[in-house]
Amino acid sequence: VSSPTDPSQRAAQESQREDDVLERIASILARDHIRGGEVHIGDDAAVLLPTVGETLISTDVCVAGVHLDTTLFPIEDLGYKAVVTAFSDIAAMGGRALACVVGVIAPSGGDLDALHHGMAEASQFVNAPIVGGDVTRGRDFAVAVTVLGECAGRGAVLRSGARPGDTLMVTGPLGRAAAGLRRRREGTPLNDELVTAHRRPWPCLAEGVAARDAGAHAMMDLSDGLGIDVHRMADASGVGFALTDIPVAHGATWDEAVSGGEDYELLIATDQPDRLRMIYQDRGLDPLFEIGRVVAQPSLRTLSGSPFVRRGFEHRF
Amino acid sequence: VSSPTDPSQRAAQESQREDDVLERIASILARDHIRGGEVHIGDDAAVLLPTVGETLISTDVCVAGVHLDTTLFPIEDLGYKAVVTAFSDIAAMGGRALACVVGVIAPSGGDLDALHHGMAEASQFVNAPIVGGDVTRGRDFAVAVTVLGECAGRGAVLRSGARPGDTLMVTGPLGRAAAGLRRRREGTPLNDELVTAHRRPWPCLAEGVAARDAGAHAMMDLSDGLGIDVHRMADASGVGFALTDIPVAHGATWDEAVSGGEDYELLIATDQPDRLRMIYQDRGLDPLFEIGRVVAQPSLRTLSGSPFVRRGFEHRF
Repeated sequence: VSSPTDPSQRAAQESQREDDVLERIASILARDHIRGGEVHIGDDAAVLLPTVGETLISTDVCVAGVHLDTTLFPIEDLGYKAVVTAFSDIAAMGGRALACVVGVIAPSGGDLDALHHGMAEASQFVNAPIVGGDVTRGRDFAVAVTVLGECAGRGAVLRSGARPGDTLMVTGPLGRAAAGLRRRREGTPLNDELVTAHRRPWPCLAEGVAARDAGAHAMMDLSDGLGIDVHRMADASGVGFALTDIPVAHGATWDEAVSGGEDYELLIATDQPDRLRMIYQDRGLDPLFEIGRVVAQPSLRTLSGSPFVRRGFEHRF
Repeated sequence: VSSPTDPSQRAAQESQREDDVLERIASILARDHIRGGEVHIGDDAAVLLPTVGETLISTDVCVAGVHLDTTLFPIEDLGYKAVVTAFSDIAAMGGRALACVVGVIAPSGGDLDALHHGMAEASQFVNAPIVGGDVTRGRDFAVAVTVLGECAGRGAVLRSGARPGDTLMVTGPLGRAAAGLRRRREGTPLNDELVTAHRRPWPCLAEGVAARDAGAHAMMDLSDGLGIDVHRMADASGVGFALTDIPVAHGATWDEAVSGGEDYELLIATDQPDRLRMIYQDRGLDPLFEIGRVVAQPSLRTLSGSPFVRRGFEHRF
């Protein structure tokens, strides 16, 4: 817990507001079962059992007004999406989700309960507890979620391992999240299927583990859209690519599929596409989409033979 | 990495600003040596070696204007303090610092380099690398630091273990950080000793490990000031306390020592104070200060026989 230096906040206070708030939040995040020997929310740090294999850790920050239009979506969506976005990075390594901690900035009077309900929902869906957190004041709602995962056995799948000749695959059709956002802007209700795809993305954890088990060479999640993320994989691997086809989700436009982002499907490079497909089928996972090949020449980046330039979201500072 | 939904940010962009920024930040945070088999900044998640003992994880959020007065202090102080504050929670469990990840919110045009230089400095001082991060836009600078630690052998020291009859000790005199802030507000230069104590706190990692090795019953860091934190330990342990003396740092007032916060000294409860003192002496650590005793009656909370009420910083929402 950290302590502000704003003098107006420093005076001795009669009430115990922060501890009260933290207690209520802890009850929202509480789980029925905590593994023996573990200590979750309430101490200086959470205590977890030793990791069995490589430890994975990743952090993601989501800000209201930047990552979520709060005039269109309830604040619990920010919490839900922040947690899923973060666990998607564990999925992208082929890891198992272990736990997460959540740092929250909240404006005065903001609905902390709703935000934490959204985070708790996502944490329950991915079956990884929220074991700690921090709450502080600020002008805008923001959430920083840090996730822990582990890779037993074979190592984590990096984005730098793509090799010439590898087949490039994605775990699902693209553009659903962007299409859902567009529909919501047009006034479509929150429970519309595509709007729900935007509000309640799913991290491809089982798909990531399966790809690792199948010996995939490289993997990453498509958080910023294929139009930029496939370039990032190529950059990291020192290769190029020749795309043949991009699977556009039903109801989405081609542009939404390429540069919409927030789909959290996985991009996989493998020299054993048939093995990968078989393992997905055996495990009851949705079929993969083949989108092209890895080529040796790093500057060669094409779709159907034409140059495929970077396009997608990047922050500007 | 997460992707915004603000439409003005979503358009295809010619420049590659975000990736450029991330590359520059990565070079600021880079370390000469990375342990074999580990992957730090640059992939979806960092890959670390398995933890040997219990895994500790904690997160802290620091916001410019709340945790740092940016009219008085440079922005790198926010980065430095955020990292130290977070590692102080590992110290408070008796853990060893392993690594951290940093989530940053930055306003347009903000000095990201300075902020990250401050974080890198703290990370080098505690000898625990920054292995990952995220940067996003927002109205105010904010940093969320999540730290990983481990406890080999004997378990982590919780704040809930204090027992009646235990001696209460602190690792150093209190109030230096608050005195430094006061002096800075009075116009004292940044390099003044007390101002530096405010800007460059130190997490008591060696002191925490020594207390764990000495079999301390309970421990926590005094981030919010003894006036509130000793109550938190008593609440968690279901006990009361009888304080006899509070060590006030040279140059600090009694009030700054009690409710100033941000000192990051450790509060320790032990039934073997002499053993603890000896271990500290053997390891070349500064001498401990005895401040009182734990008593069985939870409602009995006194200083020199008079009621000692909660006083210190708490956020209000």
